[in-house]
Amino acid sequence: MPYRSPVADILFSLRSVANLPGMIDQGLAGELDWDAVKSIVAEAGRFATEEIAPLNRVGDLAGARYENGAVTTPPGFADVYTRWAEAGWNGVSAPAKFGGMGLPHLVNVACTEIWNGAAMAFALCPLLTEGAIGALKAHGSRELTEVYLPPMVSGRWTGTMNLTEPQAGSDLNAVRTRAERAEDGSYRLFGQKIFITYGEHDMAENIVHLVLARLPGAPAGTRGLSLFLAPKFLVNAEGSVGERNDLRCAGIEHKLGIHGSPTCVMVYGDNDGAKAWLIGEENRGLAAMFVMMNAARLAVGTQGVAIGDRAYQQALTYARERRQGRAGKGGDAMSPIIEHPDVQRMLMTMKANVHAARGICHLTGASLDLASHARTEDERTAAANRAALLTPIAKAFSTDIGDEATSIGVQVHGGMGYIEETGAAQHMRDSRIAAIYEGANGIHALDLVQRKLPLAGGETVKREIAGVREVAGAVADRGSARFGSTAERLFEAVDVLEETTHTMMRWLERDQHPALAGASQYLRLFGLALGGACLAKAGLAAEALAADWDDESELGRVGLARFFAEKLTTAAPGLARAIASGSAPLEPYEAILAESA
Amino acid sequence: MPYRSPVADILFSLRSVANLPGMIDQGLAGELDWDAVKSIVAEAGRFATEEIAPLNRVGDLAGARYENGAVTTPPGFADVYTRWAEAGWNGVSAPAKFGGMGLPHLVNVACTEIWNGAAMAFALCPLLTEGAIGALKAHGSRELTEVYLPPMVSGRWTGTMNLTEPQAGSDLNAVRTRAERAEDGSYRLFGQKIFITYGEHDMAENIVHLVLARLPGAPAGTRGLSLFLAPKFLVNAEGSVGERNDLRCAGIEHKLGIHGSPTCVMVYGDNDGAKAWLIGEENRGLAAMFVMMNAARLAVGTQGVAIGDRAYQQALTYARERRQGRAGKGGDAMSPIIEHPDVQRMLMTMKANVHAARGICHLTGASLDLASHARTEDERTAAANRAALLTPIAKAFSTDIGDEATSIGVQVHGGMGYIEETGAAQHMRDSRIAAIYEGANGIHALDLVQRKLPLAGGETVKREIAGVREVAGAVADRGSARFGSTAERLFEAVDVLEETTHTMMRWLERDQHPALAGASQYLRLFGLALGGACLAKAGLAAEALAADWDDESELGRVGLARFFAEKLTTAAPGLARAIASGSAPLEPYEAILAESA
Repeated sequence: MPYRSPVADILFSLRSVANLPGMIDQGLAGELDWDAVKSIVAEAGRFATEEIAPLNRVGDLAGARYENGAVTTPPGFADVYTRWAEAGWNGVSAPAKFGGMGLPHLVNVACTEIWNGAAMAFALCPLLTEGAIGALKAHGSRELTEVYLPPMVSGRWTGTMNLTEPQAGSDLNAVRTRAERAEDGSYRLFGQKIFITYGEHDMAENIVHLVLARLPGAPAGTRGLSLFLAPKFLVNAEGSVGERNDLRCAGIEHKLGIHGSPTCVMVYGDNDGAKAWLIGEENRGLAAMFVMMNAARLAVGTQGVAIGDRAYQQALTYARERRQGRAGKGGDAMSPIIEHPDVQRMLMTMKANVHAARGICHLTGASLDLASHARTEDERTAAANRAALLTPIAKAFSTDIGDEATSIGVQVHGGMGYIEETGAAQHMRDSRIAAIYEGANGIHALDLVQRKLPLAGGETVKREIAGVREVAGAVADRGSARFGSTAERLFEAVDVLEETTHTMMRWLERDQHPALAGASQYLRLFGLALGGACLAKAGLAAEALAADWDDESELGRVGLARFFAEKLTTAAPGLARAIASGSAPLEPYEAILAESA
Repeated sequence: MPYRSPVADILFSLRSVANLPGMIDQGLAGELDWDAVKSIVAEAGRFATEEIAPLNRVGDLAGARYENGAVTTPPGFADVYTRWAEAGWNGVSAPAKFGGMGLPHLVNVACTEIWNGAAMAFALCPLLTEGAIGALKAHGSRELTEVYLPPMVSGRWTGTMNLTEPQAGSDLNAVRTRAERAEDGSYRLFGQKIFITYGEHDMAENIVHLVLARLPGAPAGTRGLSLFLAPKFLVNAEGSVGERNDLRCAGIEHKLGIHGSPTCVMVYGDNDGAKAWLIGEENRGLAAMFVMMNAARLAVGTQGVAIGDRAYQQALTYARERRQGRAGKGGDAMSPIIEHPDVQRMLMTMKANVHAARGICHLTGASLDLASHARTEDERTAAANRAALLTPIAKAFSTDIGDEATSIGVQVHGGMGYIEETGAAQHMRDSRIAAIYEGANGIHALDLVQRKLPLAGGETVKREIAGVREVAGAVADRGSARFGSTAERLFEAVDVLEETTHTMMRWLERDQHPALAGASQYLRLFGLALGGACLAKAGLAAEALAADWDDESELGRVGLARFFAEKLTTAAPGLARAIASGSAPLEPYEAILAESA
């Protein structure tokens, strides 16, 4: 079976995990109704399945090509992008004022998964544009937004995010790109940026670069960074595309995966400087960039879900077709490998992790919506805090899951998985970037522990933990045999999560070292507990469908929750134990990592 | 720092974990002394570091090339191979009678790691030759061995292993390649084999194919398989290479990694059939092939160690040089990333896992030596059983570790890790095959549970568990603060391993399903406990060096054991808990894996 966008699974999660219908009923989603959501997601799925998915392999094989400053995207990318943008898909979450659909974040998360599952290298282009739109909308002047947002929302122009320099990856303190004030109120940029996704390409009329740079005399560190807009082509008074700006792509990278997506070295100011305009205030660039980065983090987490699901679908199809060995169901004929318990374990691990990560991404999206639209200020603040808490988990847990699922996908294929023509290896190669870009996952673990646990005096995380406990309680109350020991395992996980959270917060007050040493394992622990709760919520909804509507078609979701709880969430106490050992085992690191003579 | 073969670490493990000096003292290693072992391993390391390691990247970039039935290996492969063989390295473990060095298995495991760490794609060629030598030596007729072994041992001719066919991967029951009896007592082969490593190449004068095929009227299944020897060039009476045999390479695969190693489609018998000679008895081919497969399994496990160590070395070098962020050691300057606790965690995880896996491979090698050379029949049988028990763990745990370590290696490099020029991604791509070939790791987990736990009525596994417990006890007795909670964690792991083993054996007596469902997690659990014991043994030896000889240079090994115990072995109880849930969570797999409408 060829790849198909997982529309039904996404909708089920939007409904049962993120409670989008409830938000609609409360009037928090404008005039949108649930049927419209279903139509939109289904139509996105149709477009992605039919039009985008076939680009995935082409993009990997042909790759983006660089010659003399120009980048040619793989065959079909430009055409499909144009049709995709013309259908309005680039503006899903952008405000109607600028030509967007103004749909909830949650619907956008759903669509982001759909585009990325179909072809991650293709979908990266609008993913960056969306981030740039967000930053510009939040911090750009009226003049800038009026000129730039309409063509960016329509997708005629695309956007980029220029942070990284050779010496400044995760650490933006080290950014050296220089900005100078011009007499007309604009600026001139000079410097080099690396790893700029779709920094140059042939899919759109113009490319709008958002660039972090430093003004003369600016404070050292990130407090001296300003954010600028520098278009590839300057824009004429009436909004048409004019002459070429003083910026260029100096080359693209040869990468492990996402070959179709050009990763550019960008050079600003070979001559008089790239003309640029300030976004927000001078030296407040990081704040403006954070808008973009936060949206992008959730989107990257969604990529992990997307590619994990794609790998799962392919492995499932193969496991049903490939016959090897006898699984004991009688007869001498070879069994489809799906009948072997170890293969079932692999497939269920992929699926359960992907669904758990999807749930976490949806909860994050829902929190973003509530942060904008909840009735009271308190509710909005609480929701914004929740989104802040969940974003690093959505990013890092989901992308780790993406790597694990795509690697298992290769394994299910056996020797064929190692052959590039099979396509399973491409998913693994493509997926591998997601745990690295938009902040390496270790950075998100630190962010979770150092910045997010203390939110609202610890109230935000406390509520999240209570929410998981509530789900475990609901499963226990339900008392359905289908859930097996799901409630017990979930209670166990939430107990150790709570205890570990207290430990972390105590550590944060003194020497931070043990908290930093355990941050990555803590993020994983959080993901297991929260992901388990997401699956259990979906399972409870499936049980309700069966009980209330005699519809047993979704009961597999109960089994999925049970599998996750009994086979994977079981890792939670061990993670807690490892974290509890603190930083002492790391302290002699120089001796431990020293080479022997 | 460029890559260097880990000679000191290997020697430390041979001594402290596998007790090779003790075996030498007991006269179990012939005339070999420990100084000779040190010289041999050091010289292998020098050759690998200087001559083979530079081929690693070349091999990846150039790849093996196919044209008109001929395969060209990457630049330098043939030259270095010739010099390597001329230095006698191909015959490390082969008997002196045929020109080999007749060294213990353990020394061979050490050398295998060294070649593969330097360039896995290169080292695969002799790895296969070695397997073929083993099968031929054990089961070949006097005539065959006299003709073929000397040039194979010297490395003038190489060997291959032809099992897989398109419909027969893990399941050899499905082999269809046909053999016919010729009048002169030889045979003719007809059929196609796939995934034949170094099935064709330009590095040696002749290629000796070992081929599983089926005689007319042979029983169905594996009991109807016979093993044949079919050389690329027929051999003249005086042993020189004669005319071309009726077999050819029809193409090579385009793979995720090990690009330098040609993975061939082999076609036998386009015309009158490929001339072949029987190895062992008719219909007993699998038994003969198993000799080859068992040796190859340990060798493949060693590849996981080798490439994990290479990835670790590269990540360590990068982490010492790359500066990002401030790790709090004062000052405004950016810190080398190795000062960040999360990076320390990543590097230590790589190193600890690699050393643990190396220890397991060395224990397996030592058991093979004892199986041949121990004084009494009982000791030899017990050692052979131990080798049989440990082989699937050495293979699957070590190659999983290889994948994990190489992926963490990419992560330590951040964005640079995703750029192919960095080389970190190549390790990940190369490593990924090792969990698949020589039996996918899931198959080894089943082998461990179904075939190895019952060995000697359960006595073999019982002893192994007792051995781990003994090490935990020794750490506890030592009472050194440097070990932290190593003893407690190791006791905990061995307790759950023991309990889970009993559960597994109870299950095996009835319905096997829950045992199969938990096999992979059980193998991991075993690896954690046994690997932890290996590290602890090395740590105890390091403590003894410090106490007895005032040599504190190896004390980092105590810290490594502690890190593994407190941060990684902690996963053991969770694995046990997951296994204990049995097969119930898998049973509704059809519903769980079903697509939603």
